Amino acid sequence: MRTSTVQTFKTARRLLTGAHASHELAREMHQLGCKCPLIVTDRGVSQAGITDTITAQLQASGVEHFAVFDAISAEPEMAVVEACRALFVEQGCDGIVAVGGGSAMDTAKAVAVYAGDERPLAELFGEDQVMPRRFPLICLPTTAGTGSEVTNISILADNEAQLKKGIVSNELLPDVAIVAPELTLSCPPSVTAASGVDALVHAVESYLSKFATALTEPYSLAAVQKIKASLVRAYEQPNDMSAREEMATASLMAGLAFGNAGVGAVHALAYPLGGRYHLSHGMSNAVMFVPVMRWNQAACPERFVELAKAFGAPADITADAAGELVIDEISALCSAVKIPAQLRAFDIPESALPELAVAASGVTRLLRNNPRELSVQDIEAIYREAY
Amino acid sequence: MRTSTVQTFKTARRLLTGAHASHELAREMHQLGCKCPLIVTDRGVSQAGITDTITAQLQASGVEHFAVFDAISAEPEMAVVEACRALFVEQGCDGIVAVGGGSAMDTAKAVAVYAGDERPLAELFGEDQVMPRRFPLICLPTTAGTGSEVTNISILADNEAQLKKGIVSNELLPDVAIVAPELTLSCPPSVTAASGVDALVHAVESYLSKFATALTEPYSLAAVQKIKASLVRAYEQPNDMSAREEMATASLMAGLAFGNAGVGAVHALAYPLGGRYHLSHGMSNAVMFVPVMRWNQAACPERFVELAKAFGAPADITADAAGELVIDEISALCSAVKIPAQLRAFDIPESALPELAVAASGVTRLLRNNPRELSVQDIEAIYREAY
Repeated sequence: MRTSTVQTFKTARRLLTGAHASHELAREMHQLGCKCPLIVTDRGVSQAGITDTITAQLQASGVEHFAVFDAISAEPEMAVVEACRALFVEQGCDGIVAVGGGSAMDTAKAVAVYAGDERPLAELFGEDQVMPRRFPLICLPTTAGTGSEVTNISILADNEAQLKKGIVSNELLPDVAIVAPELTLSCPPSVTAASGVDALVHAVESYLSKFATALTEPYSLAAVQKIKASLVRAYEQPNDMSAREEMATASLMAGLAFGNAGVGAVHALAYPLGGRYHLSHGMSNAVMFVPVMRWNQAACPERFVELAKAFGAPADITADAAGELVIDEISALCSAVKIPAQLRAFDIPESALPELAVAASGVTRLLRNNPRELSVQDIEAIYREAY
Repeated sequence: MRTSTVQTFKTARRLLTGAHASHELAREMHQLGCKCPLIVTDRGVSQAGITDTITAQLQASGVEHFAVFDAISAEPEMAVVEACRALFVEQGCDGIVAVGGGSAMDTAKAVAVYAGDERPLAELFGEDQVMPRRFPLICLPTTAGTGSEVTNISILADNEAQLKKGIVSNELLPDVAIVAPELTLSCPPSVTAASGVDALVHAVESYLSKFATALTEPYSLAAVQKIKASLVRAYEQPNDMSAREEMATASLMAGLAFGNAGVGAVHALAYPLGGRYHLSHGMSNAVMFVPVMRWNQAACPERFVELAKAFGAPADITADAAGELVIDEISALCSAVKIPAQLRAFDIPESALPELAVAASGVTRLLRNNPRELSVQDIEAIYREAY
């Protein structure tokens, strides 16, 4: 699966993991010279009391000045980035701390590069269009998860164009990612489910990617093992700290893997569902997961053997059995955490499928990573299978 | 094995791997704003023609100014760091590129932080005693290897005091590590052997460390697998590019693992051999490897089961069998690459063992990572077993 070209592995400069890692925030800010952070979060996180806990810890550590922006939308939008940056400037902030899921982190990452740039936000989209980041950036995920704390991309919705667009640059990699399981304890079961399956998609798609490397493969497989062992437990027993810690670490590992190896057709086919029908990122990935795996299986049977072993299969499993086992395990996990298995469960008319297929076939940035090529017809057939 | 405290994972900001990765040096220097690098290397590397190849590539990419320091000693010394820094200042360099084994890299890392500091070198030793690094640092290992390209420590010999001392700081983590297998092709078999066994020690000791984490464990085990698969091939067929690439990646993985989880008693017992009898780092580790593993085995049988599986044992191996298998595999690898198995093969009198034991028992920085405690008497007994 590995290509013969030079491979790059990059991540946040420092990763903090383990129970109570969030208590290290003030110290990390201090080391980065940040005295007045803008805390970027969402209302759900604030309502769960997490923002108050974090700001109280900062104050106890002598941080006197900070501002809080908690008007993050379910999927991050350009208009929200503008509002967030305006608060950053108005409050004289000198650093950014994201506390939230993928939406808060993607917004914070965009603001971190946009805050020091005079150009309009629209000019930052694409690859390497941003200037060197002037303000420190720390990410604390509250879901497990998107892995956004270790990736170099921020995906924003352009609601006018009904499109999602990405800012891609290593300047978006945080200085520090603090992956603290205690921040995920208040995550409601439905979000635990969707974000956990999202992490599983990251693990599996990064492993199957044409750009998987020796440094990403062990993390992809370890993430699969951990998610299989702990997702249902975290869903059914939200206060099980050990399940939360396993899931937080698994999400980080999957982020390290896909942040370098990329993701593939599951994400490519999920994007138009998010852009047009506003399915959440996690949900749209989950519903496309099994149909795309059925498609991919024929292209790389030996990869499915390794995935099957990560799901617990014996070492001598055959390639045919491995493909079935992986698909069964994914279906069983999705069903155990009540993720709808069919597109029809959402408000999407069957007549929209051809148009969705055309849109998905344009996501070449992701389709090129996929182990098996897909024509527009193939994509439409997969949508019909998923319907 | 994992502790309940917060765990940190850090590395070079960017890792480049794969064949021809060394061709990316000029581009990486350019991105870091480095226009006149000091290339820190050793005579063996220069005599193998590697330095000329690298400088020719730089010139072809438009780099007009650079300086070369190739007077690196077998084990890096304080006096060499002084000489290297003097050349850096004299030539008006603005960045440091290490091309070599652990000695060149450790010297380069020390110069990178020392070059911008007015204080005497002696004041930089210890933990976090250095100022923020002002000059970019890129490391290209030519052995597989020490893993120094991804660790935050530089070990220097203080020849007057007959001691090895460490500068420890995250400022020593390079901006970029370029782990290019083509740079190891000219490595002579004896160096391939000693550095390859050194990488295996890093992989095994980091896995057994009390501070092993979810992020280090997969790399430790993957490194063991790769070294078992490719070390003998790289030793017997030095031009086998695929074996060289496997070993280069394994050494990097082992470096990522021990750079965060630490190493243990093998290293602690090897240090005095290097400091007093000038055994190379690789050789002194290799000779202590099996006796220390015999000692550790009883403390963590379940860890030896995972190591045994990485060496190729079936999944249902018993703990007793696993311990024996790991020790047999290590012995067989060392013997296949002609590493002397006994201390007596070196010029060390048996009467020196008690004194060496006292010295080793003082290396608490490493002994505290070891899964089983050792008294001075225990250490002396292990030296006698190794003799």
